Amino acid sequence: MPEHATDYLAPNAANHVALSPLSFLQRSVHIHPHKTAVIHGARNYSYREFYERCVRLAAALHAHGVAVGTTVSVLAPNIPALLEAHYGVAMAGGVLNAINTRLDASTIRFMLHHAECRVFLVDSEYSALAKAALEGVESPPLLVEILDNEVTPNFRSAFDADVLNYEAWLAAADPHFAWQLPVDEWQSLALNYTSGTTGDPKGVLYHHRGAYLNAMSNVIAFKLATDSVYLWTLPMFHCNGWTMTWAVTLAGGTHVCLRQVDPARIFALIGAHSVTHLCGAPIVLNMIANAPELPAAPFVPMVEVAVGGATPPSAIIERIERLGFHVTHLYGLTETYGPATLCEWQSDWDDLAVTARAQKVARQGVITPAQGELRVIDVHTGADVPGDGNSIGEIVLRGNTVMKGYLKNSQATHAAFTDGWFHTGDLAVMHADGYIEIKDRAKDIIISGGENISTLEIEEVLYRHPAVLEASVAAKPDEKWGETPCAFVTLKAGQAATAAEIMAWCREHLAHFKCPRHVVFGELPKTSTGKIQKYILRDWARALK
Amino acid sequence: MPEHATDYLAPNAANHVALSPLSFLQRSVHIHPHKTAVIHGARNYSYREFYERCVRLAAALHAHGVAVGTTVSVLAPNIPALLEAHYGVAMAGGVLNAINTRLDASTIRFMLHHAECRVFLVDSEYSALAKAALEGVESPPLLVEILDNEVTPNFRSAFDADVLNYEAWLAAADPHFAWQLPVDEWQSLALNYTSGTTGDPKGVLYHHRGAYLNAMSNVIAFKLATDSVYLWTLPMFHCNGWTMTWAVTLAGGTHVCLRQVDPARIFALIGAHSVTHLCGAPIVLNMIANAPELPAAPFVPMVEVAVGGATPPSAIIERIERLGFHVTHLYGLTETYGPATLCEWQSDWDDLAVTARAQKVARQGVITPAQGELRVIDVHTGADVPGDGNSIGEIVLRGNTVMKGYLKNSQATHAAFTDGWFHTGDLAVMHADGYIEIKDRAKDIIISGGENISTLEIEEVLYRHPAVLEASVAAKPDEKWGETPCAFVTLKAGQAATAAEIMAWCREHLAHFKCPRHVVFGELPKTSTGKIQKYILRDWARALK
Repeated sequence: MPEHATDYLAPNAANHVALSPLSFLQRSVHIHPHKTAVIHGARNYSYREFYERCVRLAAALHAHGVAVGTTVSVLAPNIPALLEAHYGVAMAGGVLNAINTRLDASTIRFMLHHAECRVFLVDSEYSALAKAALEGVESPPLLVEILDNEVTPNFRSAFDADVLNYEAWLAAADPHFAWQLPVDEWQSLALNYTSGTTGDPKGVLYHHRGAYLNAMSNVIAFKLATDSVYLWTLPMFHCNGWTMTWAVTLAGGTHVCLRQVDPARIFALIGAHSVTHLCGAPIVLNMIANAPELPAAPFVPMVEVAVGGATPPSAIIERIERLGFHVTHLYGLTETYGPATLCEWQSDWDDLAVTARAQKVARQGVITPAQGELRVIDVHTGADVPGDGNSIGEIVLRGNTVMKGYLKNSQATHAAFTDGWFHTGDLAVMHADGYIEIKDRAKDIIISGGENISTLEIEEVLYRHPAVLEASVAAKPDEKWGETPCAFVTLKAGQAATAAEIMAWCREHLAHFKCPRHVVFGELPKTSTGKIQKYILRDWARALK
Repeated sequence: MPEHATDYLAPNAANHVALSPLSFLQRSVHIHPHKTAVIHGARNYSYREFYERCVRLAAALHAHGVAVGTTVSVLAPNIPALLEAHYGVAMAGGVLNAINTRLDASTIRFMLHHAECRVFLVDSEYSALAKAALEGVESPPLLVEILDNEVTPNFRSAFDADVLNYEAWLAAADPHFAWQLPVDEWQSLALNYTSGTTGDPKGVLYHHRGAYLNAMSNVIAFKLATDSVYLWTLPMFHCNGWTMTWAVTLAGGTHVCLRQVDPARIFALIGAHSVTHLCGAPIVLNMIANAPELPAAPFVPMVEVAVGGATPPSAIIERIERLGFHVTHLYGLTETYGPATLCEWQSDWDDLAVTARAQKVARQGVITPAQGELRVIDVHTGADVPGDGNSIGEIVLRGNTVMKGYLKNSQATHAAFTDGWFHTGDLAVMHADGYIEIKDRAKDIIISGGENISTLEIEEVLYRHPAVLEASVAAKPDEKWGETPCAFVTLKAGQAATAAEIMAWCREHLAHFKCPRHVVFGELPKTSTGKIQKYILRDWARALK
């Protein structure tokens, strides 16, 4: 131990600075003051303008008492104000709570109360929803309305005429507000509620350190650079847009805002702004792949698409790649700042046929650059499952891009962090090449005659049927087998298929015991985030005669 | 402050892992076990082989008592063993001290003693030097000789026949040694001695956190990716190869080793392995640009070259870019893990003529992605100098990629960190575009008639003279003016120029008061790291009649 008298080697102000994504904006405004940072319809902000708007927001929040730990909630689609909140709230020391716009008023009311929201920024389109959510709230937050120029003109605000206006509020704020980086990189930065299917939503806390590292990791994984143009098809209220809100700024790239996911608008914006990257859940890919009007030719150069949030059927990957999108598959949870794994490309996949390649890409892959460790463990013994592509276990993670914990919920936090690992509740196999493939949520797996059946594996086959638009499989209780698979299917417009045909298709592609015994046609129940609600399907399956 | 009862929100094993570059190798061996990690002449190591060699090295070191804080020194050129030491030493908990092979025996003896070196790995080419350095050392380290297959066969070791052999030592070590990440990311990882021109060398300590962040920053700044092939023209003993030793591994790229910088070999390796990146001091660029035999055509795609350690004359940048190298200029010090700034490209430079572009690129630029803050401050008042491209001040830095401190030297550490900033001792101007340009080391500036004269500015002009190979300028004491510039020039082989011609050339391109009053022809004195020794030139200038 040669470091004698090491007091002087302790961290000091010159060599230890809290990791914070705020430093990304600080750096990019210095290097690229005149470069376009944000595009929204006819509006453009240079990095200097964007930075100044964020500082003004911080000043306005600070003036209203926002300090370290104060929650600021935002109910808005992917507009500049929400992006600005990703910096301005933290510059004031506060915690950003971006709320899913598809939630109902009572859930939002729960969140505002639970988070002790002090300031609430609301896009006028959601003013009626916000007004309903605020009903009966004892100490209501300061309400600020965002009137977006891209809102359809026939829209009217539900708020009183004297509500604060975001632009006027910013204009009146100090553009020279002396914001500072957090002293402690463990300081909370964001609060994202999970859309739990049962019970109250849990408030996942992110800290500055994790957001900084996850954003760096994204820049590396997706090769973001100053010439990157990122289209906001992924809601910023999902894990802060998988931290792309900060990553694109670190790269010095351009954010292209988007109020609403609409394929025609997406195609137009890609053309108009030379979009290089976008992200989304499989449903976004599905919308693009099945758009009524497709672009005349595939995009050149290809648009990089990161897809996650659920497993994209390989048939959809295949279809969208033909349109000029290159798909990288991610896996993660709100608890992991979004991406925890990605299906990193292997050069020997270059020579595979499109379908075989799509099946490789549909796997969840390996840890992202900033994630620490991943294991797939036997749920009974806790030992690593063999890398045989067949033995199912739970994915557990450890790393700096795992959440700080659940706000005001020590019990759920402790449960999630049992044995020093974050337990995802997702079931997967480990392939021989070290890539994981998710087989199911722990609660979704079907156990039939003692065999585990992955509902995802059946869904993968269903999606390959030419008439199928969407499919989901749930367990149906069975006296003999314990459970059997029941398929729920939405057909494409103008397409037809019978239950017998679907079952025959499955028998062609699956082991017999994995084939659905029932097929139900119709629309699938979905959460506000577009996830298929399997617990409802399980109820439906149970009720089936 | 809504985080009530926040004990459960403190860091735990699942969400806080020490930042360490060891995690990069851990990740890459998992994802790319069969990919080529290291090439050295006819030898190739896959990531699995490379990883196993590092683990064996850690096991062998551990067996010899290397633990947290123990120093392991290496005296070797850029061969696989030195790269392996960048992982194996840290896996055992130790501190890597990579020694400059151009140093003399007594300086190396000082370092081995000061660092309390426990194990000393020596390439056989440097065995005589090491033997001399070890003479009279009281408790000599364990000596291990590396016999490199790429050494010229007529070479004989100066060590006794029974000295440990690196390969045999590795072969006998445990390939399953259970190494662990450091518990504390502030733990020392590397010890790099500065080649101070006066006084004893200072031992700069790096910690795991800084190396991790600087490597991430390099991957982002140089767009390293899995298809990157990095040629080791920069000595790994310089700031651990500017942390490229770890960055290339993070990217999952390939390291191409190189015993000796030789233009013909560099051109051959670029061709043979499709090299994408290399780094070096201006002298490396100079050697390439002035190689006796140039490649038949410029390299396509261009090879990315990062140059730093001294300011590259723009004439050399211009020349090397014509050969198919794209130059990014860096600035940094041993104290900043290498790169602290880089001259980030601006899209509006695309349209500039080659010469104008080279002048932009010759500036030191803006902070790297992981560096915190940079200021140029007036040395008297401590205030920021105006961004006028003219006012000279000292560069000070603050960030996570600033050293931990100097080993066993609290005084020098405190002095370097005065007022919470790392003081570089380099003098620069801040341009209107926020880019810095170094004008001189504080001690090299010439003050003539009360005016500051940058020796670099004069050198820049000298290098543009067609007959000049190398040039350096130092102050000559002058009764009337205080000091005047004195130029020392090496001419290109077969070229001629008189002192009068050189002075006339300077008057054409410089303000009169900045022109050298004396020109001296001959070879320039250099340090073991290839830096021109200005303090010797100052002595020469003083002695001139």
